[in-house]
Amino acid sequence: MPDFFDVVHTQRACRSFSDDDVPDELLAKVLDAATFAPSAENKQPWAFVVVRDPDTRGRIAELTRQVWEGGARQYEETHLDARILADVDQGTTGGFARAPVAVVVCGDAGSAFESTLPSSVFPATQNLLLAATALGLGSALTTLATAMRDELSTSLALPDTVKPMAVVFLGWPAKKLGPPKRVSYREKTHRDRYGESFWRS
Amino acid sequence: MPDFFDVVHTQRACRSFSDDDVPDELLAKVLDAATFAPSAENKQPWAFVVVRDPDTRGRIAELTRQVWEGGARQYEETHLDARILADVDQGTTGGFARAPVAVVVCGDAGSAFESTLPSSVFPATQNLLLAATALGLGSALTTLATAMRDELSTSLALPDTVKPMAVVFLGWPAKKLGPPKRVSYREKTHRDRYGESFWRS
Repeated sequence: MPDFFDVVHTQRACRSFSDDDVPDELLAKVLDAATFAPSAENKQPWAFVVVRDPDTRGRIAELTRQVWEGGARQYEETHLDARILADVDQGTTGGFARAPVAVVVCGDAGSAFESTLPSSVFPATQNLLLAATALGLGSALTTLATAMRDELSTSLALPDTVKPMAVVFLGWPAKKLGPPKRVSYREKTHRDRYGESFWRS
Repeated sequence: MPDFFDVVHTQRACRSFSDDDVPDELLAKVLDAATFAPSAENKQPWAFVVVRDPDTRGRIAELTRQVWEGGARQYEETHLDARILADVDQGTTGGFARAPVAVVVCGDAGSAFESTLPSSVFPATQNLLLAATALGLGSALTTLATAMRDELSTSLALPDTVKPMAVVFLGWPAKKLGPPKRVSYREKTHRDRYGESFWRS
């Protein structure tokens, strides 16, 4: 039984996967967890396309690479530390393509207002990532490919109302992942008004 | 040690709170969990304003009520089942105002592209909700008050770049919560292309 807080504190991006496959039974647990997220008025406006087909997976990884190399990387060169930049480079140019599974997480504007989709679909995505961590799987959330919505939608035969919002690459980590690096909540939390320290000193 | 999958399967909205307060030490655990969410390029573009001040809490609850009664409710009357509608009515007209804590979850467009905020801020919000559940707290995520961004920002003295994206009401549940009602992942999951069943029969 994985401890809840252990899972939360170890969940992090994995951008390098082994060749081992992920059985459907594990994916089922991960997807089941995703559907237990809250949603505006419990509309549950999510849809998951689990992609194992090599051509379609390759296409998704290729779109991810194109968006990264077509502009996002250039901006991040001056904004990211070199280690993360190198890791994202490695993911977009090969690591993601080797993940045995890509889950495209979509929001359905036919079942909820489009403006409410992010506050429902991204909590579901987070449940999915946490469940993957709880089962020992590596995962990476990226929204890069969604910048090419038309191309991505065509690959997956998405109806017009179904909007691709995130891609999660899933597989077994190629190497042991280090701990996530985070700024403490103490620097991110304010009391009553922005700028007031949460902890009274 | 709360089991991860138990927490995921019991997390749900609470719209009715007891009068008991929530100590800072518990809020710290909840906020710490929130900051372990993933974010685009690990920018961690979130900020949390923890509101205990009764006037400010009252203002947030009032904005929530105004947006609900000013239009959202009318639409939902014909789209929601009567039980959820009654529960949201109860929350917006009194339940939320009695929660001892409101956490306003914000995205900082000064530290990440605005378009990437939802995919970072809502995973953090989901970690917050799950951690609350793990500790026995009741919680409700609502974005209603964020529709009145200017009024909400003024109440919290938010800088221009800091965008309020969600409000989480926190406290102890007034009564035992039932299990969340969800459509099975089997009906929400597709294999390789939209419309193809995930489980081959």
